Amino acid sequence: MYTLHYSPGSAAMLVHLVLLETGAPHVLTRVDLEAGEQRSPAYLTLNPHGKVPTMIVDGAPYAEAAALAMLLAERHPEAQLAPAAGEPARAAYLQWMFHLANALQPAFRLWFYPHDGGSDAAAVKDAARARIEAEWTHLDAHLGRHGPHLLGAQPSVADFYATMLMRWSRNMPKPATAWPHLAALAARVKARPAWKRLCEIEGLADWA
Amino acid sequence: MYTLHYSPGSAAMLVHLVLLETGAPHVLTRVDLEAGEQRSPAYLTLNPHGKVPTMIVDGAPYAEAAALAMLLAERHPEAQLAPAAGEPARAAYLQWMFHLANALQPAFRLWFYPHDGGSDAAAVKDAARARIEAEWTHLDAHLGRHGPHLLGAQPSVADFYATMLMRWSRNMPKPATAWPHLAALAARVKARPAWKRLCEIEGLADWA
Repeated sequence: MYTLHYSPGSAAMLVHLVLLETGAPHVLTRVDLEAGEQRSPAYLTLNPHGKVPTMIVDGAPYAEAAALAMLLAERHPEAQLAPAAGEPARAAYLQWMFHLANALQPAFRLWFYPHDGGSDAAAVKDAARARIEAEWTHLDAHLGRHGPHLLGAQPSVADFYATMLMRWSRNMPKPATAWPHLAALAARVKARPAWKRLCEIEGLADWA
Repeated sequence: MYTLHYSPGSAAMLVHLVLLETGAPHVLTRVDLEAGEQRSPAYLTLNPHGKVPTMIVDGAPYAEAAALAMLLAERHPEAQLAPAAGEPARAAYLQWMFHLANALQPAFRLWFYPHDGGSDAAAVKDAARARIEAEWTHLDAHLGRHGPHLLGAQPSVADFYATMLMRWSRNMPKPATAWPHLAALAARVKARPAWKRLCEIEGLADWA
């Protein structure tokens, strides 16, 4: 049994999706970000950064959405959402998970919270947008050559991660789905029953 | 046999250190960043982002230092540098690897290349410095409670990753070693024979 502290549409969505995909028993606890619950003393004891998600695993709290998604995939190998250690696709899987965490997701943080990046919020947003669009171009080219998923024929947690980040771009001047191979990947992930259930449970109406 | 395309003191250092720690046979190929070799057509076919490291694994090129370090640790389990899937420390290991990749390393990119973050480079650097120092405070508190390593008694690739990032702060106004538990962790990692060999091979004289 896992307990996921989440907020709808946040990075917690990746973990929630993998919980649904694996069928692992879990409980959801909503953190009201607008009310500032993520900075409550009770929540900060679980997650000293005051961020979602936090997931309780074997009685202890852990953070970082990509890490939690990877952990769930390896604890529930029957769902076949990640190549195991030693399998041929393992190196590519790890590469994509860290590339999304290290290059794409931080640019979104600057796009959504440009004041964290310095005093000139407009310039920070422009720079973040340029980085994000460059990453879409790169990912789209990769999918065109090696797709339809990031690891080829087999879908994995890395595709779910990329799709969550694509969703975050839906109101940007040039959303990820303007790139054809990315649009095709998003359509595949959004057609999965677990994605549809997640959108119902989290109450996500747009880009659902 | 692995081939590591590296530049001294760069993020490739993490992969190089794990190669030395595991004793895995490998060949080093230096990429001269000042001469722009990372943007040569030959290198871009290996790494379309034009970054180091790239490592050739089973004949194919892969990027992302943290992913490569994690891959090497799991391909060479006898070195005991990472908890395997299913072990109790696994969740914490994944959490720290992604936290360093997602929160700390991107802030260094802004510190070193502030023009990537917008037009006001001084403001970007200030914001990056604030984020980096907040992360040191957080890591130091964690080590004080649960150290001496990030996972407790057992050193892991996550400690090497943190130490590489600490090294990057050595010329900042407040380097990581100003925090006592971080300084202790750095001293432990720097005392390892593999670290010393790495500094000799890469020709790193400061913070060696």
